[in-house]
Amino acid sequence: MAASLRIALAGLGTVGAGVIRLLDANGPLIAARAGRPIEIIAVSARDRHKDRGVDLTRFDWEDDMTGFATRDDVDVVVELVGGADGPALALARRALASGKGVVTANKAMIAHHGLELAQAAAEAGAPLRFEAAVAGGIPVIKGLSEGAAANRITGVLGILNGTCNYILSKMESTGADFAEILREAQALGYAEADPTFDVEGIDAAHKLAILAAIAFGTRLDFGAVETSGISRIRAADIAQAEALGYVIRLVGLAESEDGQLFQRVAPCLVPHGHPLAGVTGATNAVVATGNFSGPLLFQGAGAGDGPTASAVVADLIDIARGHDTAPFSLPVAMLADAAPADPGIRTSRAYLRFLVADRPGVLAEITAAMRDAGVSIESLIQLGQPEDGSEDGADPVLVAMVTHEGPEGAVARALDLLAGSPALAEEPLVMRLLG
Amino acid sequence: MAASLRIALAGLGTVGAGVIRLLDANGPLIAARAGRPIEIIAVSARDRHKDRGVDLTRFDWEDDMTGFATRDDVDVVVELVGGADGPALALARRALASGKGVVTANKAMIAHHGLELAQAAAEAGAPLRFEAAVAGGIPVIKGLSEGAAANRITGVLGILNGTCNYILSKMESTGADFAEILREAQALGYAEADPTFDVEGIDAAHKLAILAAIAFGTRLDFGAVETSGISRIRAADIAQAEALGYVIRLVGLAESEDGQLFQRVAPCLVPHGHPLAGVTGATNAVVATGNFSGPLLFQGAGAGDGPTASAVVADLIDIARGHDTAPFSLPVAMLADAAPADPGIRTSRAYLRFLVADRPGVLAEITAAMRDAGVSIESLIQLGQPEDGSEDGADPVLVAMVTHEGPEGAVARALDLLAGSPALAEEPLVMRLLG
Repeated sequence: MAASLRIALAGLGTVGAGVIRLLDANGPLIAARAGRPIEIIAVSARDRHKDRGVDLTRFDWEDDMTGFATRDDVDVVVELVGGADGPALALARRALASGKGVVTANKAMIAHHGLELAQAAAEAGAPLRFEAAVAGGIPVIKGLSEGAAANRITGVLGILNGTCNYILSKMESTGADFAEILREAQALGYAEADPTFDVEGIDAAHKLAILAAIAFGTRLDFGAVETSGISRIRAADIAQAEALGYVIRLVGLAESEDGQLFQRVAPCLVPHGHPLAGVTGATNAVVATGNFSGPLLFQGAGAGDGPTASAVVADLIDIARGHDTAPFSLPVAMLADAAPADPGIRTSRAYLRFLVADRPGVLAEITAAMRDAGVSIESLIQLGQPEDGSEDGADPVLVAMVTHEGPEGAVARALDLLAGSPALAEEPLVMRLLG
Repeated sequence: MAASLRIALAGLGTVGAGVIRLLDANGPLIAARAGRPIEIIAVSARDRHKDRGVDLTRFDWEDDMTGFATRDDVDVVVELVGGADGPALALARRALASGKGVVTANKAMIAHHGLELAQAAAEAGAPLRFEAAVAGGIPVIKGLSEGAAANRITGVLGILNGTCNYILSKMESTGADFAEILREAQALGYAEADPTFDVEGIDAAHKLAILAAIAFGTRLDFGAVETSGISRIRAADIAQAEALGYVIRLVGLAESEDGQLFQRVAPCLVPHGHPLAGVTGATNAVVATGNFSGPLLFQGAGAGDGPTASAVVADLIDIARGHDTAPFSLPVAMLADAAPADPGIRTSRAYLRFLVADRPGVLAEITAAMRDAGVSIESLIQLGQPEDGSEDGADPVLVAMVTHEGPEGAVARALDLLAGSPALAEEPLVMRLLG
């Protein structure tokens, strides 16, 4: 059998320990599949003495992981430290500059610096791979860049954040409000102490930007992802969506047309029967539509040490096999510079929810703004606030409406007309309906 | 750019014409992704003058496709002729023996001769690939052999025949009987004039045997697939399943444990909420469970010229990129010889449906056989035959029951006890409930 692929592993959190456990459990099978063993040579983490449930004494220990980049006995550096910049980025840069391969699960780093790193990898002739950065254990980067490689991809749609999907499907099944389920998710370890990255859609936006670059052959443009999160969604919104035949999911959506790239992460109303509507809990799913394949669905665990380690090691097996697909499917120099698309000209049906003062004239004000902006209302309902039985008009009430299909710009104009109105107790919530 | 990958295309049916159309439509993009153009040099089919909607004058025409194997200007032969043996197999053998790559959509040929061809490919150092042979446009062979390569796969479960799934989901939505929907499917071109291969599960068994070999690293053993089809399913079975909270799907299931391989294609009761329950129409889906990844779902179009061409060309792109995953993920010499597992010791809940004479004592006879074989009945219903209102006892009636979880061997013993009973108007129908 050929020589081992020699690995240095930076970061020994749950995923790093998972990679060690996986190689311990499946090592001989992996060596058979890859044609050579995959062998960890050295490891590095902040605390050498923490018990991670795996035996580390077999590996060299480096206090400073940047030392990996210059070791002659290392072929590939696995970066599981995290963070868009800082030590992770420094390590990736140095490893590639030294001609070593880099495998990472770091979506923030790839979303921000993926093009630079891909360029460095191309110059060094070294592999750069990040299957684990998007949708955990699901081989969706491989699915897009190889499985669907014969296609022009027309759209990518996905549930890319397990924390949000857990919270939304839990709100759905319990009827509880966001804050309550978030606290529960934090207690269970499904959400971070500071949940901003997850619940405000930033983590999903990192992943969407990576997928879009691969799908459309465009230069990665994380800054152009229109991003909103789920923290303003109320139990009443979920109930209202349900009554309309929809569930609410945080959806990442990217489309490319006429050299323009549209990228959005936002909560959407997904109709029952849509492949994404059945995705519950921390599961992730991606639908990519090719011009010959039609829609392809990839679904599985979006996080967790086992699934993420599975994706990391799949990348290592590809490298051991000598497979060298470009990190973004096309060579980085061939990626197109796509202009961000103007969302205003997109058409959709929209769900709008207002929190308004319970007094005469408010509905007239809202509906007049819709009329003046050219938004056609399909249905409208005013909902009492069940948590407060008072009827003195002092407590705000919810007004939810669904518009007919129309330009998103018209909805934006209607909301501009209403901006600052004393009738509104908070900014309106807008969610699009998926077709 | 590097030299073209030069293709000879045998078979110009809908898929062959689809491959030409795909390369015409997406050629430059594919060349960029593959690092080199993919170029058809020569084609062959039975009738040179049939209008296939694509311009063939650009290509060399060979009346005898076996000539492809000896052309110096061909790197890869694409075999889309079909048939387990005969000209397709002769072409594949000769092409590999001449050191040319072979890409095929021919599941029957791979199911019967895949090991021999993989061995020939290994000896010649030539690629052999057949992504299009399983689940049409879905990159599930890639998903298993590369995306999930870090895992020991514990089970594979899938909807692998679009014709059956179309018929079953149509029976479900219309309440019509099998024969009626089959005629409709034939008129629409979704089913062949002789539908045996599809409706009796043989086509799905071809695909399952291929998937099992890849998933478990076992020698392909099509003969060991326990196969039954959907032709005996009645509208009443669908309705009864629905009442129990299930839909009926033709499911291919393979599991490997302790060196034993279990492979079955059979109609099953799939609970609502299971990923396969929502798969309707001609869609295919595969769930593979890895010991680290957990369940991975791959879903999409299981047939059709566009999706199948997408998979064929994905294989060509892999070859153009120089990727050389072994056809069955492991080198063919390393595939294990797994003994077929004894289904009798498997446990499951089963749905049993009897067509019985409507006279006293029949239920007692059936339930006594169950008791004597040690089968525990969870629920039982006797259904009148709605198509015949006569109540003279001459017309048979349906008895449907669901058993508690128990060994499949016990159910088989119970049916043995009932075999030949004059009370039974036809052989009982047994379907397992998926968990």
